[in-house]
Amino acid sequence: MDNYKPLNIIFSNTNISDLSKLHISLLVLQQSTLNITNKLKIFIKTQKNVLIQIHHQLEIPLSLNDFTSMMTYLLEKMKIKDDKGTVLMSVIKNRIGEYLPPNTYKMRLDVAGKMVSKDEGKTYAIFINENDGEEDMETVRVSDYKMDSIGISNQITNIFSDL
Amino acid sequence: MDNYKPLNIIFSNTNISDLSKLHISLLVLQQSTLNITNKLKIFIKTQKNVLIQIHHQLEIPLSLNDFTSMMTYLLEKMKIKDDKGTVLMSVIKNRIGEYLPPNTYKMRLDVAGKMVSKDEGKTYAIFINENDGEEDMETVRVSDYKMDSIGISNQITNIFSDL
Repeated sequence: MDNYKPLNIIFSNTNISDLSKLHISLLVLQQSTLNITNKLKIFIKTQKNVLIQIHHQLEIPLSLNDFTSMMTYLLEKMKIKDDKGTVLMSVIKNRIGEYLPPNTYKMRLDVAGKMVSKDEGKTYAIFINENDGEEDMETVRVSDYKMDSIGISNQITNIFSDL
Repeated sequence: MDNYKPLNIIFSNTNISDLSKLHISLLVLQQSTLNITNKLKIFIKTQKNVLIQIHHQLEIPLSLNDFTSMMTYLLEKMKIKDDKGTVLMSVIKNRIGEYLPPNTYKMRLDVAGKMVSKDEGKTYAIFINENDGEEDMETVRVSDYKMDSIGISNQITNIFSDL
């Protein structure tokens, strides 16, 4: 298990051929206080169920072209390291559950869910764009308004800012 | 004077030849609850002091190329309208102060400023990347961490979410 983070965000069903919304969502999350204070861990699941782990020090490039190239490189080489050998992004094996601490509170976002609430000291995993909820997953919403993953990412940094 | 909004955001000193951060910042603001509930008004001031007003119904294109084309078109034609004649974006005359309600609380962001605080019922104008503060402008910060306009926009939607 990697180092513990109270908030885990999983972008499910990611379409590798159109990364524009994921790109902007990641830029929003990366620059949030949550990430700066090292409380956030991000995973990406592609439509073909490839699971990707992101290190909080990864700098998401501002340009979509550069980000798309980065993702293409990652899917070919399975890993992106910096000069010092830190793995900034990697394709990982097994199910996502293996990477979450025990007793993580799992939530799947859907406008029909109840408004999210949070307690101190808990670990959360929020699945964005997850169709098939697992048994121990609750369906919640983070806004009363319909939003795409950019707005949702913003709302999440808002709601969980004091984790 | 246009319709009243409690929060006004002004992107100052905008470099028209590199709109990437402004583009993402606008996408973040556009999808925020503040904008959805119609409490937000956005202005852009270019480095050459061209003042631009954005209508809250303007859809910011996801692609940077499309956004750059939109801005180029605007600076040539002075106005962008939708099919029904609603002005979605326009170059406006006079100083920004003319477009803010009287008694608007003006703030200029700088990491050296004191942490922003807000009161109910007040109108706020936040100047991002404004070098020369006017006399009646306070210098404040929205985060203890250094952030660019993307992170700042996210923090603002967070701090002012309950306006």
